[in-house]
Amino acid sequence: MKSEFDLIESLKKKIPRGLQGAIGIGDDAGLLKTGGTGLLVTADTIADGVDFMASEIKPELAGRKALAVNLSDIAAMGGEPLGFVISLGIPKKFPQKWIVRFYAGLMKLAAEYKTVCLGGDISGAKQFFASVAMLGKAPARPVLRSGARKGDRIGVTGKFGGSIQGRHASFPPRVKEGRWLSAAGVSSMIDVSDGLLQDLGHILKVSKAGAQIDLDRVPVSKAAARPALEHALSDGEDFELLFTVPHKKAAALEKRWKRAFPRVKISWIGQVVSGPGKIEWRRNGRKTAAPRLKRKGFTHF
Amino acid sequence: MKSEFDLIESLKKKIPRGLQGAIGIGDDAGLLKTGGTGLLVTADTIADGVDFMASEIKPELAGRKALAVNLSDIAAMGGEPLGFVISLGIPKKFPQKWIVRFYAGLMKLAAEYKTVCLGGDISGAKQFFASVAMLGKAPARPVLRSGARKGDRIGVTGKFGGSIQGRHASFPPRVKEGRWLSAAGVSSMIDVSDGLLQDLGHILKVSKAGAQIDLDRVPVSKAAARPALEHALSDGEDFELLFTVPHKKAAALEKRWKRAFPRVKISWIGQVVSGPGKIEWRRNGRKTAAPRLKRKGFTHF
Repeated sequence: MKSEFDLIESLKKKIPRGLQGAIGIGDDAGLLKTGGTGLLVTADTIADGVDFMASEIKPELAGRKALAVNLSDIAAMGGEPLGFVISLGIPKKFPQKWIVRFYAGLMKLAAEYKTVCLGGDISGAKQFFASVAMLGKAPARPVLRSGARKGDRIGVTGKFGGSIQGRHASFPPRVKEGRWLSAAGVSSMIDVSDGLLQDLGHILKVSKAGAQIDLDRVPVSKAAARPALEHALSDGEDFELLFTVPHKKAAALEKRWKRAFPRVKISWIGQVVSGPGKIEWRRNGRKTAAPRLKRKGFTHF
Repeated sequence: MKSEFDLIESLKKKIPRGLQGAIGIGDDAGLLKTGGTGLLVTADTIADGVDFMASEIKPELAGRKALAVNLSDIAAMGGEPLGFVISLGIPKKFPQKWIVRFYAGLMKLAAEYKTVCLGGDISGAKQFFASVAMLGKAPARPVLRSGARKGDRIGVTGKFGGSIQGRHASFPPRVKEGRWLSAAGVSSMIDVSDGLLQDLGHILKVSKAGAQIDLDRVPVSKAAARPALEHALSDGEDFELLFTVPHKKAAALEKRWKRAFPRVKISWIGQVVSGPGKIEWRRNGRKTAAPRLKRKGFTHF
């Protein structure tokens, strides 16, 4: 089996150009222009045994995650969540109480983020899964993955490597932060679901650029397993925001950010360089070898 | 395990009133007002072993069905399809060629109905499934299930009972027909996915009304298994439209319909009466006993 990304590439080729949305497959959310308003649409599925273990996780937390991953996609475009639909796949004899608790956790997060349930669908399945599709209001200028330019500084919110300790389900979707960064004029943005390096790679690929990364500046979570830097670079599901911003805007942005979000740190982990896909590694201002990583990032197979 | 509908009811109770959309769960699609435009949103999942058999059906036809069931939901609200997102669940070792052909069938129907793919998501799964969420433009006055009134005539498009012969995947979603009926002023509408009687029951329940059904006027498909009337009444997945219209509008509507859709017949199968949930049965103008049905309709468990 080829990887998730190979398969997505081969499916994309099946879509006639004219049938792709204004942005279409490839960014965190698709964009639809309707009556002057830009509408963001995203879809994410979580499945028992893949994205969580029904026998191990609190059902409320699994339900929370089903919605949170979609909120994170809307956040990465600088959007405002509007509403969602949910499709549940439910195995025979699956405990109904578990599902009701799952749903309660999902709706609690929906209330916190003021987003409404617009409908749903239930079908039989061999494993429990929940597919959520979320709509969001696009900002005047949605932030795409493709806007990174040479010289831009590369910033991240929060810390990395803690997802394995349960944060992959309890993380706070960075919706306010994403809207704020969008209004502040960041040039590209993505939410880190596949791993810091892999998601940086997604930005670099469509922006046709490379990056210089300061390994000593990568914010590592105290909860990260050892070797912590490796986990911070390659673990999936941190769901923090990774963005680029023109160099001259960065200092003022950081200053204003500290007032707006005193509890969430921004770290500058490097800058965009020319040379598609090239990555230069630095530590304490000096060139260094690429870090050895057992795996590059998280794939959903 | 309780039925699908019991579970939906118990989940609905978990949603605070303020978090339900303008229509919310319960109609064919949810409605979201955004910048003056009404937006319809619907979600439907089809899963291998539940809605089709991957080992028996042509993959193109399964892909077609994944999109068609959503188009049918938009049709039932009188809406115009705008775009969709798709989440695929893919088991390990599942043939990638099958998925590519599935996708090709889906995109072919998307092209026929001029609707665009806005994005998607792939995750691992124990069985192949596809969750599609579709957006549609709402008509000025979306047709709800709750609008049936005493004296209204009950109409259906096409014929019933043929779904078992493969039509459950090859049916043409009645999108043009649904928009036409919406503009013509039908009072309620639903697409028949759970079975003619069961879906009529959904309309009657929320309209707080009963029905008189003329059994001799139910249009039975030549492809229906014997006893054909029973299959026409209770099989799921005909995906025709079931609607009600004020009595005085019905004759003119039918006349204009014949010019607009000469190949699709409208049949008048009864009328709305008072008395919530009551059904009176008639044959050739005379009262008759309720038909014996082995099952009331199709549930997706």
